[in-house]
Amino acid sequence: MTEKRTIMEQPVISDRHNELQKAQPVPYRHGGDVWGAIEVAGVSVTEILDLSANINYLGLSHQVKKAIEESIDQVVHYPDPQCRRLIDALADHFAVSPDSICAGNGAVDLLDHWLHAVKARRVLIPEPAFGQYERAVAAQGGEAVRLQLEEKGHFRLDVEAWRQALQKENCDAAILCTPHNPAGWVWTAEERQAVLTHLTSAPVRLLVDESFLDFLPDGRLLSCCAEAAKSDQVAVLYSLTKFFAIPGLRLGALIAHREIINAIVRRRDPWVVNHLAQVAGIAALADRDYHRKTWEGLPQERDYLFQRLRDLPGLSPLPSAANFLLLRIEESGLSSTEWTKRLRRRGILVRNCNTFLSLGERYLRLAVRDRAATNRLIDAMRAVLAEEGML
Amino acid sequence: MTEKRTIMEQPVISDRHNELQKAQPVPYRHGGDVWGAIEVAGVSVTEILDLSANINYLGLSHQVKKAIEESIDQVVHYPDPQCRRLIDALADHFAVSPDSICAGNGAVDLLDHWLHAVKARRVLIPEPAFGQYERAVAAQGGEAVRLQLEEKGHFRLDVEAWRQALQKENCDAAILCTPHNPAGWVWTAEERQAVLTHLTSAPVRLLVDESFLDFLPDGRLLSCCAEAAKSDQVAVLYSLTKFFAIPGLRLGALIAHREIINAIVRRRDPWVVNHLAQVAGIAALADRDYHRKTWEGLPQERDYLFQRLRDLPGLSPLPSAANFLLLRIEESGLSSTEWTKRLRRRGILVRNCNTFLSLGERYLRLAVRDRAATNRLIDAMRAVLAEEGML
Repeated sequence: MTEKRTIMEQPVISDRHNELQKAQPVPYRHGGDVWGAIEVAGVSVTEILDLSANINYLGLSHQVKKAIEESIDQVVHYPDPQCRRLIDALADHFAVSPDSICAGNGAVDLLDHWLHAVKARRVLIPEPAFGQYERAVAAQGGEAVRLQLEEKGHFRLDVEAWRQALQKENCDAAILCTPHNPAGWVWTAEERQAVLTHLTSAPVRLLVDESFLDFLPDGRLLSCCAEAAKSDQVAVLYSLTKFFAIPGLRLGALIAHREIINAIVRRRDPWVVNHLAQVAGIAALADRDYHRKTWEGLPQERDYLFQRLRDLPGLSPLPSAANFLLLRIEESGLSSTEWTKRLRRRGILVRNCNTFLSLGERYLRLAVRDRAATNRLIDAMRAVLAEEGML
Repeated sequence: MTEKRTIMEQPVISDRHNELQKAQPVPYRHGGDVWGAIEVAGVSVTEILDLSANINYLGLSHQVKKAIEESIDQVVHYPDPQCRRLIDALADHFAVSPDSICAGNGAVDLLDHWLHAVKARRVLIPEPAFGQYERAVAAQGGEAVRLQLEEKGHFRLDVEAWRQALQKENCDAAILCTPHNPAGWVWTAEERQAVLTHLTSAPVRLLVDESFLDFLPDGRLLSCCAEAAKSDQVAVLYSLTKFFAIPGLRLGALIAHREIINAIVRRRDPWVVNHLAQVAGIAALADRDYHRKTWEGLPQERDYLFQRLRDLPGLSPLPSAANFLLLRIEESGLSSTEWTKRLRRRGILVRNCNTFLSLGERYLRLAVRDRAATNRLIDAMRAVLAEEGML
């Protein structure tokens, strides 16, 4: 053998290499990056007040914590690839058959798989919207088409404009989110019906992201789960990490026609949902007390946050049905980036909305938390306003 | 609006529907399905002796357990999307730069992403091999080409035959596993070099699955990590779940050229590695005592298992460098399916190798465990042989 070059000296396969070279590190464009924040600020994670992620203000349920603690020794086993007990619990929760559900490593994991399974090519996405929709559409080789929501209507969906955009843009798929992230509105029963009715005459696949729907006591009435289980035109994406405050564990679900579920399960890694997430999900869904406390407490805490923000000069909170709200900064105010920096210095993380295409530097998104946390936020915001001579 | 049909009555989009209809539920074809076993047998998970999954017999490290326990409250936060501390620990472990590594939701997650990133079309895979290679290649739209390993050579890789198959079959990618699952051999330094040297003159991408390499005290010397960090022709797949006995948490790593790493990170879900897996991985890599104990104890326990099996009539264990071994059933014996059933009845799970294309009903794979577990296995096997009048 006379070949002497080592593999390191070997030119790489050139056509592929050029494509790969385009890829650069991706900036993180979401809330909830507490681990990045403590790295920068040099504080401990317990000192951070994170309002940038839309997590239930009740925090971890005691039942869920107990279930995790009792299951740590079981991580020496592979997780149940079929997520049997979790799927049964989800089937009860959504009132659909278990074969219409699959669980995933967070909701975003299932977003990718649904887009692939239905071969979505041109996908209508509201603007603003959760940034992962666009990333996922591109990752599956599709194209995201933007429907601009109107700022003067608090970014509420206009169903008629949505129908027209679907047709005009020749979309074969669409994603809607209700309650909407980041704007906070929830669709009405009439809007829901109008959307579903449109599908009966249009060859369009719809994914409804209901990740925040359970924050409404009557949220299930506005769900598309029943339709998703029966029609392969509609699917529902659901996250257990927001309502149950377990984003660190990753747990999501997709409710869809069983043939779509089968196509996804057949294609993917069998052990995608880790064991502690399965255990936590089962305990969480069973914890009715946690549901009740959320429904009782959230509206009060959200109202309190809304009122306190409205009392600040140059800032206008938007009404919300969810556990977060969008805060508009009037023109004379600091930029959203500046607000984010100033609050971070005080150990408070808020969502800088400048990563949403159409929100510019004029919006922050804030999670609803309890009275003490909101007071800490308002005190910090008043201090910033005082620094600027605006208070 | 005169449209009266509900969405449930609407015919689905027909061309897609036909494709989806082909998808049927997937049978699980791996070891480690303890949750399925307890469902069937009605026993508790602690009563099961699971030898069907290749997990370190030392079980969960105390350091890892402690780290998980102390981090449960942190699951209310999103995981670090960049896995900063984990990647740093992995970089130390593999002696490569952090930008050559990404972590994943188990190694299989990264297998899918690597195949997509390098656009693998015809992928040479040894037979027998881990079943997820073929599933992943198909999922990414490629074609798996089988290289039959020779039974008379204990399924050891013949590098020359592998080189010829790559060329003859016009493969643009290949997967190798060392130590090999399920056969247990590990490549020599010469075999490793011969494989890498071949790549210098062949436009082939190679993924080396080193998930079991750390079970060898000098395993790092046989690794391709250094090459993987420098060349985009070679990548290394690594699982933390086997050596550290944390399959329930899901944790894997890919070592590859940084442009491949960037392409993967850009395309995928940012929160793919859950927080407890990150915490466990960091603690596990730091636990040098656990490494030392594994290297000291495993060879003895493996020898003991080997000897005890060899003493049984009609059964021949294959030599192994890993924490499992393949057991051949001679022609007069029970089928592997029958063995699996009989042992399951006694609460012992073994890997029925009839799901490997070329192993038929003639092989079981057994994890190496401690003395007491091996004695329980041997007692059960002797009882089965006695039932058959073979003892």
